Amino acid sequence: MTQDTPLAALVTQLCKLPGVGPKSAQRMAFHLLGLPLSEVETFASVMATVRRTIRYCQDCFYLTNSHRCRICDSPKRHNGQLCVVADPRDVASLERSGTYQGVYHVLGGLISPLDGRNPDTLRIPELKHRMGTGAFQEVVLAINPTIEGEATIHYLASLLGQTAVTVSRLASGLPIGADLEFADELTLTRAFIERVGIK
Amino acid sequence: MTQDTPLAALVTQLCKLPGVGPKSAQRMAFHLLGLPLSEVETFASVMATVRRTIRYCQDCFYLTNSHRCRICDSPKRHNGQLCVVADPRDVASLERSGTYQGVYHVLGGLISPLDGRNPDTLRIPELKHRMGTGAFQEVVLAINPTIEGEATIHYLASLLGQTAVTVSRLASGLPIGADLEFADELTLTRAFIERVGIK
Repeated sequence: MTQDTPLAALVTQLCKLPGVGPKSAQRMAFHLLGLPLSEVETFASVMATVRRTIRYCQDCFYLTNSHRCRICDSPKRHNGQLCVVADPRDVASLERSGTYQGVYHVLGGLISPLDGRNPDTLRIPELKHRMGTGAFQEVVLAINPTIEGEATIHYLASLLGQTAVTVSRLASGLPIGADLEFADELTLTRAFIERVGIK
Repeated sequence: MTQDTPLAALVTQLCKLPGVGPKSAQRMAFHLLGLPLSEVETFASVMATVRRTIRYCQDCFYLTNSHRCRICDSPKRHNGQLCVVADPRDVASLERSGTYQGVYHVLGGLISPLDGRNPDTLRIPELKHRMGTGAFQEVVLAINPTIEGEATIHYLASLLGQTAVTVSRLASGLPIGADLEFADELTLTRAFIERVGIK
């Protein structure tokens, strides 16, 4: 394969996709070469066009192809509720669940001093600015319960604790459909500590 | 996500890749949108260019961007040995193993009457033509030991049996590193029947 230069170039590009190793990249390359030319050209052009036109929403930093994203622009969303997430894909996940009707703030990562990510390299100054407008009554920290996530949650909680807003975080516990037998100790401990009364 | 049209369009395109479902496509889309514009444009242009320039080798029907592939063109390959495979990706797999030094013939599929694939829709007439030149002394059928593969092997074996060439197929048996305990019955039966003497 290494000598089939055009094919190898395509495989190299496909390897850039997350979760794609050389073997799946080769499978994808052969698949693409079997598709009609017009279909592959559309694929390529959509890829370049979407990347070229996409930008960050000026309010929440989610992805959009305009100045503000469809969520910030929607008159149906509750503007007093703010959900803070690490990454644009977290917005997509929450939107899929359909439970949240407020607006978002995308940090663009989590605090991790070892990787050079401190509060100022994230969109925390922008968050402070948005909080300063007094528009929000509630902030939900929808951040992964990982080491870096916990550090970020604690930092934001102490920052927002100085303001008058209600601050909460997503509940931790057993995922729906899980089995106690296979739950890890930390999750089980957390589910136990944060047990909820049955009304 | 369904309302974020440009992003959704990219996700739809990525879903066309083999083994990519909506969730991985979304992950890939977000990843691509995080890459520098120039990198995504290169990716897109490589994809379209490779598809546009690739064609089938006029001799063996492997992929090439010229009239003949690098294998048929190479003076180092043994021209008297022909390896018949179903698909271009099988050529890539065999080349990776590095054991075979002859040339190839890509059928473009396997015989499967129920799916409308009979010997004439595959490159079997072309194979007959190549065999007719008398250039080959040996034919190796490197075809998957599946139901359709076996049908194709039997068809080709009877076809080639009328000529003076040596016809062989790849050995079936336990894969290297396998465990007898976990081998399926068919593989084990085959490995037993085709056991080889220890010299």
